[in-house]
Amino acid sequence: MKYVLLISYDGTEFSGWQRQPGCRTVQETMELAAEQIFGKKLVLTASGRTDAGVHALGQVAQFQAETTIPAEKLAACFNRSLPPDVRVLKSAAAPEGFDCSRSAKRKTYRYSAYVADAELPLLSRFAVQLPKKLDLERMRKASELLLGRHDFRAFRSSGFTSKTSEREIYDLQISEKVQDGVEKYDVEVTGNGFLYNMVRILCGELFAVGAGKEEGFSKALQTGERKLLSKTMPPKGLCLIKVEYGVPLFGTAEDKDQ
Amino acid sequence: MKYVLLISYDGTEFSGWQRQPGCRTVQETMELAAEQIFGKKLVLTASGRTDAGVHALGQVAQFQAETTIPAEKLAACFNRSLPPDVRVLKSAAAPEGFDCSRSAKRKTYRYSAYVADAELPLLSRFAVQLPKKLDLERMRKASELLLGRHDFRAFRSSGFTSKTSEREIYDLQISEKVQDGVEKYDVEVTGNGFLYNMVRILCGELFAVGAGKEEGFSKALQTGERKLLSKTMPPKGLCLIKVEYGVPLFGTAEDKDQ
Repeated sequence: MKYVLLISYDGTEFSGWQRQPGCRTVQETMELAAEQIFGKKLVLTASGRTDAGVHALGQVAQFQAETTIPAEKLAACFNRSLPPDVRVLKSAAAPEGFDCSRSAKRKTYRYSAYVADAELPLLSRFAVQLPKKLDLERMRKASELLLGRHDFRAFRSSGFTSKTSEREIYDLQISEKVQDGVEKYDVEVTGNGFLYNMVRILCGELFAVGAGKEEGFSKALQTGERKLLSKTMPPKGLCLIKVEYGVPLFGTAEDKDQ
Repeated sequence: MKYVLLISYDGTEFSGWQRQPGCRTVQETMELAAEQIFGKKLVLTASGRTDAGVHALGQVAQFQAETTIPAEKLAACFNRSLPPDVRVLKSAAAPEGFDCSRSAKRKTYRYSAYVADAELPLLSRFAVQLPKKLDLERMRKASELLLGRHDFRAFRSSGFTSKTSEREIYDLQISEKVQDGVEKYDVEVTGNGFLYNMVRILCGELFAVGAGKEEGFSKALQTGERKLLSKTMPPKGLCLIKVEYGVPLFGTAEDKDQ
């Protein structure tokens, strides 16, 4: 029987999702919890890896197990064994033929930043500090160039290679709010998938454009040259918000978009 | 010369403000930074102590020093020596006769909570998890009993004794918002001062009332009996938002209420 889990984690103290010798990873932490529940080693796979320091509000993972525990009770079983920086929000039996990586249709990431002279202790865990306010109109105009299907090879860090660098971006929203006197920005981007560091590179360029740089998106999309874009943003501002499959995985009305 | 600092800290890894042997405290951390800047030991005092695990958005502290560094540059000097979980947001010369504790006219604290089946890793550092939605109307009605000047001795944990247990509450606001599908509550309370654990006891009773308990405020205020009120809430949901003095300390328009 295949099960699916909806998982949230604070990525600060994790070396990313994927198991690596000598590192504390989300995958290993989840697999150790699974071993306590099922009494044997299992492999958990996720919709995709997240890098060291990247957070997740709604990562989806799966595993095979034989158990009499009702599927929806598995979340609580995991949470009894997990450390506080990772939690299973929901659990369910996987639909027929489902694979949490291959079946994923849309992924949404959010990148968060705030404006301050110094890093703010109450915000700095999940957002990056920017020295000056951004021009959101410039950023929104530039972001329109990214919508649709493009070869995003300029938006990729070396080290990981996907078969193709073509991806489709369905939506990109830039929002601002003022909280406790601090200007905060969220960039939320939905696509059919993202290359290695793509969201962090895309946001680096967007923030640079917001600070006055001429946009490099057009030429980078044409030429595929990484150097036309600004620096890769740090991982701590990034959060995997949701993975959508076109079918509800966790059975309640509020998850109809999962 | 006396200087004042506006300080923010993530209280998670601190054993509160006040210096204690063998513990990592905000006071000691600040004093070590001061020693690096001024080359000798100084004493920093705050508007009031915060407990272990309590956060601050706008704590105010003061110290005496002789230096040629312009007062407004001291914030950046401190930040070069401080660990990331504490930051000086602003620095200034203290007004004539000012004392950050005795001169404080109003203090505002915020207590934050959210509704979920399990602790949520992206929220649990600065807010507490509640199992069910609260009835805010019941809470607001009960909170009105607290406004004004009262003897709050029932709202005090043993261990610390103030000369008087009379305090005045000027304002208490309960707000809700839904963020990423999660119901969040903030209780923000402003008074001329608070007894030891007063805000955490007050919020424990408010949350209990919101969950259906009959309010114990009336009788507790009459009788002074701590046992008429619910449990003291955990420190991590509490944040010292601001301390007001009736004069602007940090000189800019946005701090006119400091």
